[in-house]
Order: sequence, then structure tokens, then C-alpha cells
Amino acid sequence: MDLVLGIDGGGTSCRAALATASGQVLGRGKSGPANIMTDLEGARHNIVEAARLAFVDAGRDAALIPETGAVLGLAGTNVGGYKQQLLEILPFGRSLVESDALIALNGALGDHDGAIAIIGTGSIFMSRKGTAMQTIGGWGFMLGDLGGGARIGRDLLQETLLAHDDIHPSSPLTQAVMERFGGDAREIVKFGASSKPANFGAFAPLVFEHAVLGDAAAKAVLARAVNDIEEALDALKLSSDQRLCLLGGLSGLVAPHLSARYRALLHAPEQDALGGAVAMAARLFGTAGASAHV
Amino acid sequence: MDLVLGIDGGGTSCRAALATASGQVLGRGKSGPANIMTDLEGARHNIVEAARLAFVDAGRDAALIPETGAVLGLAGTNVGGYKQQLLEILPFGRSLVESDALIALNGALGDHDGAIAIIGTGSIFMSRKGTAMQTIGGWGFMLGDLGGGARIGRDLLQETLLAHDDIHPSSPLTQAVMERFGGDAREIVKFGASSKPANFGAFAPLVFEHAVLGDAAAKAVLARAVNDIEEALDALKLSSDQRLCLLGGLSGLVAPHLSARYRALLHAPEQDALGGAVAMAARLFGTAGASAHV
Repeated sequence: MDLVLGIDGGGTSCRAALATASGQVLGRGKSGPANIMTDLEGARHNIVEAARLAFVDAGRDAALIPETGAVLGLAGTNVGGYKQQLLEILPFGRSLVESDALIALNGALGDHDGAIAIIGTGSIFMSRKGTAMQTIGGWGFMLGDLGGGARIGRDLLQETLLAHDDIHPSSPLTQAVMERFGGDAREIVKFGASSKPANFGAFAPLVFEHAVLGDAAAKAVLARAVNDIEEALDALKLSSDQRLCLLGGLSGLVAPHLSARYRALLHAPEQDALGGAVAMAARLFGTAGASAHV
Repeated sequence: MDLVLGIDGGGTSCRAALATASGQVLGRGKSGPANIMTDLEGARHNIVEAARLAFVDAGRDAALIPETGAVLGLAGTNVGGYKQQLLEILPFGRSLVESDALIALNGALGDHDGAIAIIGTGSIFMSRKGTAMQTIGGWGFMLGDLGGGARIGRDLLQETLLAHDDIHPSSPLTQAVMERFGGDAREIVKFGASSKPANFGAFAPLVFEHAVLGDAAAKAVLARAVNDIEEALDALKLSSDQRLCLLGGLSGLVAPHLSARYRALLHAPEQDALGGAVAMAARLFGTAGASAHV
């Protein structure tokens, strides 16, 4: 194949990059959400639209789509039979559908061994050593995603109620949260009952801000989150020559709080997830090398 | 007034007891749910129906309802304006609407100072010293109710996922839970996303069973719950001459795990919540004494 596509699809948008057989990006496109769990047909539409826009951006004829190989990294590929259903309706010459975490790992690590920790609203951990892959976490807000923003925010609201009841000491942070809810604990309870993970996650940056100022409640919530993250990293059993890339919206805030052992492994990601998908597509369908690392 | 009513209304049923002015119970009645938050008119209907059945049970004329004073202990009285709306449509001669926890406290402690801890699906703590009352917790499953059955069950499912990911060691209990979900972690996640507090709470008894057998995961979950319960009790600042009554579906399972300091304060409740409502009604509207403790 002369051309390959990398595609990064998530709950808010879908991005595509058209590249040469060796992985050199020629054009990019962006469209709407590509959540195969909630809207398979809509996801297929936005995937193809992002690909078409990448062809246009590159000045190439989108009629070549059926002759182009594509690697797609999508959220929700581990659930149900959605991945197989999607494969049956994709228009590309050849398609590989993988998790969003896997293309992020390939982008971040390039050819190196190591691990990624994606700390955003949720949390998920993934490592690669040679051809061996391990994935940890990513189970969602209610029972998992420990160390992620939504869990940090939920913990903060719980601490605020504990402080309100004099069970734990109050702090400038718990007082500030209480004030946001008009000083009425029942408003916090109402918020908690009606909120989605992203709403809880909106409180997470406050915890980092106040922890740096020495706030005791913030430090307790943050220490719990960092402990949860490091317990997950421990389970990946990284050796000292492996790289660790922190990704996701909270990565910059989390990094300084990791213990020295993990800070020593930190590397900036080589590329983003879309770059990872392009590199995988070039290896698998182009001329960029063997498929050992796909 | 010659007759008084005690009424205990909750999410599954409403119970009423008709008593003499001195608090001697003459008859009882039971009807459907009395949740003033979800169905005010339905709650009013079941409250009156339970009262009517208590009159019938006592061989008295229910036409006397408008001349009878009633104390009602109801869930959800602390939220919104429901209590005021209910008061306006109740048919009793005089009515006092209080929380379900307050009538439980009056029933359990009688004339003594002390505290109650209601540990069921949720958790709430309440103390009385002379005329001073303090209420702690009861904020619901998402951000509160620490030490209650739903939080214990949620914790167990989280531990099961952590064990599945090799983040924490597995144990006979986490393996048993995993088997209940066909060995598929995604089924646990699905359960967590679609379950109500009572569904999580159904897992709590397993934790107590396995903790006694020495299961490490069970002991860790239980230790956290007991610590949460004792932190709430600490905030009530009980003195060594005060009574502590454990109420709620998990009280019998929790009691043996409390520290010696709190086990020494434990007393069996003098009466149930309905008995507490009757005693309050007799004091307030009858001849059973001053209203000091109402």
C-alpha cells in the first residue's frame, strides 16, 4: 500500500492522519465523536469523515480509501462485540481496531520498552516489554479508575462532608468547597447524586493547588491518589531501564508528586496517540518495518 | 388528649401505634411506603391508613383521628420543603414530624443520655446529652454513609478488581466474588454501573463471614468500615457513662468488631423506633411527662 491511515477516536472527537507507507504524515482531519459503544453507525460515519478530511488536507483523492490500510485506536473496544461489528462496516482496504490506550502507548514509547499511565478523568496503566503487553485498571468511576480526577474529586467532596460533621478536621480547602455549595451539605449530596465522572473530576485541580499550599485535607486526598497510582505502577514491575510516560489531563499535576523511583523513569512521550496509530499503520500496512511491535 | 399516635414511616412500609395518654399501646397498624420525597400524597395516604388500622386494632373509632396527637418519624425530613407540605395535609389534631433517626434514638435510649449508630445499607449517628442533640452522617451512598453495607459492598467489588489486576493480593473472598461474576471483570463493572445501594449492600455479609475466617481482603475492607464507624462515634464525644445502641441490619455483625472502648458502652435498645414515636407522643400530647426530651 502506498498510503496508510492512523485514527484516534474518542467520546468527543475523532482525528485521522494520512501518511506515506513509511509513516510520513501528509494530512490530517478531524470530525465528531466515535464512541462505538453508544452509537456504532455514528462512530463509523465520523471515522470515515475524519479519514476523508485527511485525504483532502493532503491533496489526495479520497476515492483511494478502499485501498488504504488503517489502524484505529478507539475507546470501548474491550466491551461486548462492538469491535467486530465495526470491522464489518469499515471501508478501508485493511483495518486493525485496537484500544485507545494501545495507540497511546505506541505513540508515547515509540520502539522503547516501558509503560504509560493515563491519568485523566479516569486512570489506566499499560506496559510493553518486547512483545509482552500488560493492561491494568480502566474499570470506570464507580469501582475503579483509582487515582483519576473523578475519584480525586469524589474523595474531596467526601472529605468536605466528613469535615462538616467534625469527623475529620476542616481545612481551607474543605471550607472553600463548602462555600461553593452555599454552606449547605445537602447541596453537596445533591450534586453527588446527579453528577457524571467529569463533574467530579472538575474538583481535582483544586486538590493539587491546595496540597502545594500545605492544606492537610488536600494532602490526604492527594496522598491516597498517588498511593493508588504507584500501587498500579508497582504491579507493572518496571525495571530501571524502562521508560514511564504520564499521559492524560492530570499528568502534569501528578508527576511532581510521584516517588523518586518513578520520577527517575519519567520520559516525555515521543508522539501523541494519533502518531502512535500512524506508526502502527506504517509498520503493519506500509514499509516502515516488521510488525513485531504492533 | 386521651389518645396519641406514634408513626414510623419508611421507604418500604409505614407502621402506626395507638396509645393511651400515658403511652400504653392499645393497637397497631401497618400500610405501604411513606416516602415523602418521592410521593407526598401516597405517603399521606399510607400514614393515615396505618393510623386507621391501629384504631381498628384497638377497637376504637377512627373518627377520633382529628382529635388525636401524632408524632411521625419519617425518612427524608431534612431535604427540601417536604416536611412543611406534609404537615399542611395531615388530618391529626396535632402533628410533630421528625426524622426516622430521632424516633429511633428516643426508642433505643428511653430517658438515658447516649447515642445510636444505625448501620444498615447506609449509616447515621445521633447522640443526646440532656437537651443537646447531635446528628452525624447519613449523607447517602455516593459521598457518605461510610461504614454502611452499601459502602462495604462497593469496597469489596473494588478490591476484587484490584486483585484481578494483581494490584492487591487476591484472597478466597475476592476469588469467590470473581466467580459470582463468571470470572469476568467486565461483569463486575457492569453491575457497579447499574446497581442501587441495596444491591451493593447485599455483598456486605460476605465480608463479615470471610473476615472471621481470616481472609486478608475481607479483614482490610472490614477494618476500613469499623475505622469509619469509630471516627464518627469519636466525633460524638461520648463519656463512659453514656449508652451506645447499635441499630440497623448490620448492627449484630458490626458489634463484635468495635474496639473495647465502644463495646463497653453497648446497650440493647429499650424499644424500637415506633416505641420511640409513641413515647414522644405521650410526652408531648398526653400525660406521660414534660416535653423536655422531645
